[in-house]
Amino acid sequence: MPKAIGVLKQYIKSIVEINDNKKSKYFAFFIQGLILLSIVTFSVETIPDLKPQTRMLLRIIEWFSVMVFTLEYLLRIYVADNKPKFIFSFFGIIDLLAILPFYLAFGVDLRSLRALRFLRLFRILKLVRYNNAMNHFTRAIKSAKEEILLFIFITLILIYFSAVGIYYFENEAQPEHFSSIFDSLWWAVITLTTVGYGDVYPITVGGKVFTFFILMIGLGIVAIPTGIISSALTKSVDKNEESR
Amino acid sequence: MPKAIGVLKQYIKSIVEINDNKKSKYFAFFIQGLILLSIVTFSVETIPDLKPQTRMLLRIIEWFSVMVFTLEYLLRIYVADNKPKFIFSFFGIIDLLAILPFYLAFGVDLRSLRALRFLRLFRILKLVRYNNAMNHFTRAIKSAKEEILLFIFITLILIYFSAVGIYYFENEAQPEHFSSIFDSLWWAVITLTTVGYGDVYPITVGGKVFTFFILMIGLGIVAIPTGIISSALTKSVDKNEESR
Amino acid sequence: MPKAIGVLKQYIKSIVEINDNKKSKYFAFFIQGLILLSIVTFSVETIPDLKPQTRMLLRIIEWFSVMVFTLEYLLRIYVADNKPKFIFSFFGIIDLLAILPFYLAFGVDLRSLRALRFLRLFRILKLVRYNNAMNHFTRAIKSAKEEILLFIFITLILIYFSAVGIYYFENEAQPEHFSSIFDSLWWAVITLTTVGYGDVYPITVGGKVFTFFILMIGLGIVAIPTGIISSALTKSVDKNEESR
Amino acid sequence: MPKAIGVLKQYIKSIVEINDNKKSKYFAFFIQGLILLSIVTFSVETIPDLKPQTRMLLRIIEWFSVMVFTLEYLLRIYVADNKPKFIFSFFGIIDLLAILPFYLAFGVDLRSLRALRFLRLFRILKLVRYNNAMNHFTRAIKSAKEEILLFIFITLILIYFSAVGIYYFENEAQPEHFSSIFDSLWWAVITLTTVGYGDVYPITVGGKVFTFFILMIGLGIVAIPTGIISSALTKSVDKNEESR
Repeated sequence: MPKAIGVLKQYIKSIVEINDNKKSKYFAFFIQGLILLSIVTFSVETIPDLKPQTRMLLRIIEWFSVMVFTLEYLLRIYVADNKPKFIFSFFGIIDLLAILPFYLAFGVDLRSLRALRFLRLFRILKLVRYNNAMNHFTRAIKSAKEEILLFIFITLILIYFSAVGIYYFENEAQPEHFSSIFDSLWWAVITLTTVGYGDVYPITVGGKVFTFFILMIGLGIVAIPTGIISSALTKSVDKNEESR
Repeated sequence: MPKAIGVLKQYIKSIVEINDNKKSKYFAFFIQGLILLSIVTFSVETIPDLKPQTRMLLRIIEWFSVMVFTLEYLLRIYVADNKPKFIFSFFGIIDLLAILPFYLAFGVDLRSLRALRFLRLFRILKLVRYNNAMNHFTRAIKSAKEEILLFIFITLILIYFSAVGIYYFENEAQPEHFSSIFDSLWWAVITLTTVGYGDVYPITVGGKVFTFFILMIGLGIVAIPTGIISSALTKSVDKNEESR
Repeated sequence: MPKAIGVLKQYIKSIVEINDNKKSKYFAFFIQGLILLSIVTFSVETIPDLKPQTRMLLRIIEWFSVMVFTLEYLLRIYVADNKPKFIFSFFGIIDLLAILPFYLAFGVDLRSLRALRFLRLFRILKLVRYNNAMNHFTRAIKSAKEEILLFIFITLILIYFSAVGIYYFENEAQPEHFSSIFDSLWWAVITLTTVGYGDVYPITVGGKVFTFFILMIGLGIVAIPTGIISSALTKSVDKNEESR
Repeated sequence: MPKAIGVLKQYIKSIVEINDNKKSKYFAFFIQGLILLSIVTFSVETIPDLKPQTRMLLRIIEWFSVMVFTLEYLLRIYVADNKPKFIFSFFGIIDLLAILPFYLAFGVDLRSLRALRFLRLFRILKLVRYNNAMNHFTRAIKSAKEEILLFIFITLILIYFSAVGIYYFENEAQPEHFSSIFDSLWWAVITLTTVGYGDVYPITVGGKVFTFFILMIGLGIVAIPTGIISSALTKSVDKNEESR
């Protein structure tokens, strides 16, 4: 009898953990599909004035996906060689967070439900398990960590200086838009990233000239991290190809 | 007699298929010019309140170009060594799609004409036949396929997260602009691509701080595919030069 | 006597043409300063409601600079070894264009004066004579000519497709903004370059989804020429350093 | 006695100047924290309608940080081997500028206080002392100095040409927005950097077509310095790794 159970365990393990046979691939596709469906229902729920039938359908999908994710979680614990290690691993915690909000919602009152609902989004991170290319990206980020941090530091100082400068020039002319440095920071972020919504912009000559100089200096600096990550990634790919 | 026909066929083939003599070059220029003219007339047709004379002129140009494209298509079939292979090849299908809408318009009622008219735009793809540099670009894309897919995946997740976050912060303050996650997705796309039309933007402090963090993370990531394609293209050019 | 004139000619030549002694450097600085001054006065002239005194001052500066540029032009012809060659060289023509509008203004009636005035801007190009680094840039552009042309071609097709698509989606909902494909082209240019003024933007769901896809494809492509020029420039610099 | 003082001096020096023991690290953290706190209080001060208690708290923090910075400055002079050299060094001047505004505020009347307050921001530069990565960046900038200057020159000419062109096209249609070339310069800066606030944009067909061409040329050029700095930085990192 224990032997039969051992064979079953091995069989489940081959489907759930190792992705090398047909059944395990179908299982992976099924779980990924359910994650995507679960994210779509999460989004649809936020549409105002839904019909009661739609609400019911969304709830059924949610119940079904939580049931499946729970079963998957229990199976993964069951087949794990080192159970505590799996439970406290990155994916163990993610798997738990993906179902926890549903069960917690029974125990708490309705007020705090909203923030809980957002926890369901952790399910997206379950997708990472099936994405090997992601490691690639993580490695590239790590290798360029120092430069990225340096540029975040420079960017923050530049944004702050821009905010102070524009506050100095525009505060008197537009006290409603540039009432304090904190308000000016919003302008600095939206301008230096070149988003430029147009909700706040300088109207004095001084402010416009200042914006010109800030943009000349800033555009180069804000955009540099892109170049760094991009070159780090290219290097990481090259190394991969060499080591093959 | 069959021999004379064979010589004629060879003569047409040298003009239509192989671009190495003067006549075939004039033929190519003529077809390219007609494609461009055909696209211009397509655009002019959409201008409201055209004079009847202009409408008539546009129709004549359209008739003429379809006649020429039909003749070209038939000649290409005629001179092809393997006729079915040409008909079902990429350019065979494009050549058919370029004239099909015109002939279909006789058989169907006027309602569905509009969508049909847009099919005429496939003619632009006929231009690709004459553009060798395009292969270059296609090869660069293919060599960087894996990284591009990875970044599309990351970008999509980032856009989705931004939409959920901003929905959380702005839904109460601006229910008309951030009524559901689907509405928020529009904001996320327009902000992370730095287009920033200014039709929707956060007004709460929480939403603005969230936008700052999203932009800091997002700008780097959204712009990276550019770097990848660009470096892949440079490599592809280098290889080309080496192999010459 | 002819010998004394020869010495004088050599002396002028050393100042005007060859930049290796102190006097020629002062001469170069003087000309460059006058060009910049001339551009500033050109800009100031466009300010509406200027005082008569200011107008008079601007006219005097203009007269003075034209006199100097004319003298410079005549001296350059005088010291040139091959006079016709200089006159029809790039800089010979630029030097003439820089003063011609002034003299032509005497002969023509006032109507066409405005377009003539803009010709004065050619003086900016006189600055290029003193800028060696410019050659560097020209060489980099030339070496990447093929790729740049390819991307301009792809970009144009992409902009055109975007315009047709958005016309299809938004024409009915916003006939005033998307009245024809030509109007939609304006939207396509401002969106794909991420300028996003906010004067026209899609409001239908179809148009917004279409914009999302266009931006995903487009941002990569539109930004690529930058990468190409930038890498071509880096290469050109490397070669320069090697050949030193 | 002098020996004991010498030991004390050496002890202070090890904390203030050299960052290799625990105490000196705590000291560095404390100064950095105080700089950040001082910048936060500077920003909070600009919020209108603060409570008197908050104002008092801000003033106490300001007094305290100036006291500490003054003490730090005096200690640094005390332990310096070459006192005049330190006082006139970059960091010596920054340290002085960080405290000077506070003391000057006693001697001058209230009117000019505002500009003085901004001098307090020089304290941010004190952070640079603790950031080694910064040197890295400075070196990269220096090595690409020539190209950066060239592109600033080209960018300026391009912005100026754009302003003149749009003035020509839009002046008659929108005299309030494009009243002179100086007003048009604002449009040129905001458009070529792709910020696109939407406060000024062309409405004539000529102006729109001109904007299209300017953007096609301009986007490549304005963005190139980024590529240059980015590649210079990568090189500088590579050299660093090699020399290790």
